[in-house]
Amino acid sequence: MGESWATLGVDLHLETGGDAARGGVRKGLTDALREAVRGGRLAPGTRLPSSRSLAVDLGIARNTVADAYADLVAEGWLTARQGSGTRVAERPVAPPVRPAPARRPAGAPTYDLHPGTPDLSSFPRAEWLKAARRALAAAPNAAFGYGDPRGRIELREALAGYLARARGVSADPDRVVITAGFVHGLSILGRVLRARGLRDAAVESYGLDIHWNLLHRAGLRTAPLALDGLGTDVAGLAGGPAKAVLLTPAHQFPIGSPLHPDRRAAVVDWARREGGVILEDDYDGEFRYDRQPVDPTPWELSKSPVRYRKGQVGALQGLDPERVVYMGTASKSLAPGLRLGWIVLPDSLVAEVADAKGPADSCGVFDQLTLAEFIGSGAYDRHVRRMRLRYRHRRDELVAALAERAPRIGVTGLSAGLHVVLRLPPGLDERTVVQAAHWQGLAVQGVGAYRHSDAKVETWGGLVVGYGTPSDSAWAGTLEALLQVLSAVGDIEEPRPV
Amino acid sequence: MGESWATLGVDLHLETGGDAARGGVRKGLTDALREAVRGGRLAPGTRLPSSRSLAVDLGIARNTVADAYADLVAEGWLTARQGSGTRVAERPVAPPVRPAPARRPAGAPTYDLHPGTPDLSSFPRAEWLKAARRALAAAPNAAFGYGDPRGRIELREALAGYLARARGVSADPDRVVITAGFVHGLSILGRVLRARGLRDAAVESYGLDIHWNLLHRAGLRTAPLALDGLGTDVAGLAGGPAKAVLLTPAHQFPIGSPLHPDRRAAVVDWARREGGVILEDDYDGEFRYDRQPVDPTPWELSKSPVRYRKGQVGALQGLDPERVVYMGTASKSLAPGLRLGWIVLPDSLVAEVADAKGPADSCGVFDQLTLAEFIGSGAYDRHVRRMRLRYRHRRDELVAALAERAPRIGVTGLSAGLHVVLRLPPGLDERTVVQAAHWQGLAVQGVGAYRHSDAKVETWGGLVVGYGTPSDSAWAGTLEALLQVLSAVGDIEEPRPV
Repeated sequence: MGESWATLGVDLHLETGGDAARGGVRKGLTDALREAVRGGRLAPGTRLPSSRSLAVDLGIARNTVADAYADLVAEGWLTARQGSGTRVAERPVAPPVRPAPARRPAGAPTYDLHPGTPDLSSFPRAEWLKAARRALAAAPNAAFGYGDPRGRIELREALAGYLARARGVSADPDRVVITAGFVHGLSILGRVLRARGLRDAAVESYGLDIHWNLLHRAGLRTAPLALDGLGTDVAGLAGGPAKAVLLTPAHQFPIGSPLHPDRRAAVVDWARREGGVILEDDYDGEFRYDRQPVDPTPWELSKSPVRYRKGQVGALQGLDPERVVYMGTASKSLAPGLRLGWIVLPDSLVAEVADAKGPADSCGVFDQLTLAEFIGSGAYDRHVRRMRLRYRHRRDELVAALAERAPRIGVTGLSAGLHVVLRLPPGLDERTVVQAAHWQGLAVQGVGAYRHSDAKVETWGGLVVGYGTPSDSAWAGTLEALLQVLSAVGDIEEPRPV
Repeated sequence: MGESWATLGVDLHLETGGDAARGGVRKGLTDALREAVRGGRLAPGTRLPSSRSLAVDLGIARNTVADAYADLVAEGWLTARQGSGTRVAERPVAPPVRPAPARRPAGAPTYDLHPGTPDLSSFPRAEWLKAARRALAAAPNAAFGYGDPRGRIELREALAGYLARARGVSADPDRVVITAGFVHGLSILGRVLRARGLRDAAVESYGLDIHWNLLHRAGLRTAPLALDGLGTDVAGLAGGPAKAVLLTPAHQFPIGSPLHPDRRAAVVDWARREGGVILEDDYDGEFRYDRQPVDPTPWELSKSPVRYRKGQVGALQGLDPERVVYMGTASKSLAPGLRLGWIVLPDSLVAEVADAKGPADSCGVFDQLTLAEFIGSGAYDRHVRRMRLRYRHRRDELVAALAERAPRIGVTGLSAGLHVVLRLPPGLDERTVVQAAHWQGLAVQGVGAYRHSDAKVETWGGLVVGYGTPSDSAWAGTLEALLQVLSAVGDIEEPRPV
């Protein structure tokens, strides 16, 4: 029976097996460490000494310690992480029995109003297959090889035509790059901008943390711009460290307001003046319902409304194609499962982006060729029109039902897109409502989940309601579930006159 | 200046004049449409919305639209035909001059023997489309959404079965992750290993620099292991800084030899002893032609051959699924354009890899479902068998022709895969041969292009000949071109007896 003390990092008393055989020492050390964790002598989160120093302390081979650590990591008692060494796991319950992961997340909601996904039951399967057949028949053999990092020319041509016509984008096929969706494109652009020496990117006060994290991973800091009734306040860019800004000009996500025309002009002026780059996330530009949107922003609901024409919703990129990187996606107009997005680049960025992407970091050629055929045949326009009508109908039903049954709820951001923002009455905490919805099997997200931690905005309680998510057959039930939750919490929270 | 959207028939972004007077509106609309046609945003032949629907969309009088259309027809920008409505004229005025992009790289070779691409003309289009139709019909709606970061369960199940059967891989669907090809998978693994604290990865003396660069980009240094007649010398791993090693055990790329059974065992022992991870690149495991490969390695050509059984070519992963990460791809068995690959992970890495990948960094769901159907229906096996016969036939023709017409050339690495290595006679510089081939319109690569800059190997001149690359119809001509180049340079360089 030998005893030793390890003193680096943590005082650790181990009883190692006396067997001199290596297997015996390793087993003894592993058992002793496991017992120390199980018994609580080594608390969760405790950092263990390095295998080298523990080996010196114990007078045994370093590999023996490393093996013991590895065994315990594999068993779940310890964790190994870059920069923080080996630590006692936070919940070191023995996981030898591993339950088969459920095929769908446990407790999947009965009703789903999470934003960000279109109605998947409406995917045009028959039309898509027709386009796939034509595309496959027409494809040259070379299409099946490693190709242009920008993607297939057929799709780049089809997109250049479509985006010019439908979104006012100044595009030519040479400056279009196909990606596996917006996230893929943003990740490439983050790397390219970092490689150009950028360290800071401005973002909006509201957005998706997955996007901000992508920029962080690329080595860029993000700082949010203020947001008010005119949209994101781009004046905050002037003279600042950020030389790139990520915006959703047509339909701020998730707040819903378009960027005011003055600010569209101002951000382009800033980019020209200071050599900045604007990343335009046009995630749902296809879905605009009202010619002259007049719905108030959440701030305006409680103030005198700002009066301006909000009709300008073409791509910001059209104002200056050399300063704006336009990014679109098929995830909202068709389906996220396609994993297809596109970037329209300034000339000066094309080579760098193509290089960062490379011919092997791409998406399947069949889907590219099929989408090209789908656009070229007019099927894309027809699908978008059909879905636009359907989503607008849902929006109208939602707004009418809310006005009738939950009149204290303000509705904003409703002139476009697949979601609205509900502003909750003062005193009604959004987490309470989200939780109440969860209990009723209704998935809905609080607006706080989209707020940047450094956001410079007055906070308020709200829900982001993705009315595009349910299937047609589920829509009525989902709407009813939402109304019941809102009227229930409204009844509870509303201060009653005595 | 106001702006408007027309949505009936075609999505059209117009800037109309802000003057409220009818003449002003008419002029604004006319100017905007003319600009859209002149600038190419409205392509020749595009059908415009009816004057009635555009008027509704723009909130102006129908006659104003009709007048604007009439003006533009009179000017020649539009055409009006009964039954086909108003369209953009076929040849308006010349759009801004933009040089037409070249559709194919300048100087594409007439004959292509670059390795790494299968015969693209043999892609099974009809079978693939059949599988796509069945897959699309069977797909649940949820398949079109953001999904499991590991990929579709249908494909993970199909691959787990196939890999166990065909490659001896110990796989279950929970440990399979679908990627957009090998490069995508390696890039994810590099990031995961770096996040675990690894700083060094061992690689082979020969390989692809794109793979090494991916590891560098993830923050890992690469150092090559020595290579000899038994394959890569894994003894160099012992006690070294690298805790991960990237290997091509079944068919060293590009040298062609399999890893000797003793070394397969030794590298697994190393991984167990030192907590190492083996990354197994099984890029062309489907294509093995000879049960007991006996072809000499390039080193053996000039020495007494090493005698051992080389028959063992199943996946290394089968020896220890918790120490080996198995990586395969559809790029050689089907086509690189699919952008489909797969990783079979140790349990301990699944969560980290899925987390690093994320649900949006993936490949299209249709190709995933189609490949699952393709494998499940037996079409994949049939295709691989058909191609194996075809490639073996080419290999046999190549070897026979070289023996007859370029007898001083040694041929190695011929028992598997889609390429062989030709060892040039001493005194014949491979760059000379590659250049001579280039002049003849034949693309072929020197073996030096695949040598790691720190490779610990005796260097020698050789060519890597990808005989799988040409189409069937191009094969005979390509082989003849190679033979002519080799006999020509052989004649020039061969020392003649005086």
